[in-house]
Amino acid sequence: MESSSHGYMSDKDKYLTRLRRIEGQARGVHRMIDEDTYCIDILTQISAMTSALENVALALLDDHLKHCVADAAATGGDTAEEKIREASAAIQRLVKS
Amino acid sequence: MESSSHGYMSDKDKYLTRLRRIEGQARGVHRMIDEDTYCIDILTQISAMTSALENVALALLDDHLKHCVADAAATGGDTAEEKIREASAAIQRLVKS
Amino acid sequence: MESSSHGYMSDKDKYLTRLRRIEGQARGVHRMIDEDTYCIDILTQISAMTSALENVALALLDDHLKHCVADAAATGGDTAEEKIREASAAIQRLVKS
Amino acid sequence: MESSSHGYMSDKDKYLTRLRRIEGQARGVHRMIDEDTYCIDILTQISAMTSALENVALALLDDHLKHCVADAAATGGDTAEEKIREASAAIQRLVKS
Repeated sequence: MESSSHGYMSDKDKYLTRLRRIEGQARGVHRMIDEDTYCIDILTQISAMTSALENVALALLDDHLKHCVADAAATGGDTAEEKIREASAAIQRLVKS
Repeated sequence: MESSSHGYMSDKDKYLTRLRRIEGQARGVHRMIDEDTYCIDILTQISAMTSALENVALALLDDHLKHCVADAAATGGDTAEEKIREASAAIQRLVKS
Repeated sequence: MESSSHGYMSDKDKYLTRLRRIEGQARGVHRMIDEDTYCIDILTQISAMTSALENVALALLDDHLKHCVADAAATGGDTAEEKIREASAAIQRLVKS
Repeated sequence: MESSSHGYMSDKDKYLTRLRRIEGQARGVHRMIDEDTYCIDILTQISAMTSALENVALALLDDHLKHCVADAAATGGDTAEEKIREASAAIQRLVKS
């Protein structure tokens, strides 16, 4: 089963629930703008949403390090280097975004 | 017309379009997880989404400063102080989130 | 006295003390690297330093909004617009950095 | 030689130079405040400094993953898990700071 190779699989339902909630938050912000909600209240909601997204990214990254990267490092060689380069680039995008 | 007092009104459609797109991105990330997409690709998508959200927040904040805060400051008094305190708190949440 | 027009003047000593402390933190990280301290401990120290810097920036920005921007907005006209444009650009750099 | 076990060793001089520069930036911001430099110019300098710090942290983390974490993962067992848990916690502090 190819898909089981991804580190986040065990918690897949939890991730799906979190994304569903973030989608709901996006819809909520859309509605707030549509209903002319006070700016500051919209910004508060967007900050909460950004935080929720970052938390999902950090959890995915942790799972990725624990599984894909650790497995590749155990095997060694070019694949290990490539996995770590990829992970570092992803971390950089997270820190800089 | 009470709603016209909010600074972002003039660009309301543009904001609504951006939020619709972010909602679509959330659905996209949900689907990527559901289809066992490679972790790093999901993280890339989440970083793009976080950036899009921050850009909406910065645009809303700019509009808010230009209109609500500037108007309150022109009037002066406690309202002006309150508006600036509120804006500072929102900026802090954005920087820290 | 021209210099007194800057918003942060009243707390100048407090800001100077905070910067002195941040300079000390930079020296501390330099020493940690020089003495081959464990990587993760250096990263913890850098995160604390980044947080301290952001807090100084947020305090300066708050003072700037309360004084320069509020004064310019009370006067109105091009200066007000220019001050708000400047402040928005600074906020964007903070959020994106 | 105990110190050679840390991943960043090979580039130690480069890191020391970067920290020296950041220390100089802190002194520069201190002087700007002392000389009543315009707020926005100070904020620009602080954003540059925060970026420089984040880049040092990302480089250290990349070296750490490439060496300590990869070595521990190759060995496996509790040490590997512990190293990855530590790295994840450091990444979280960076993203959240």
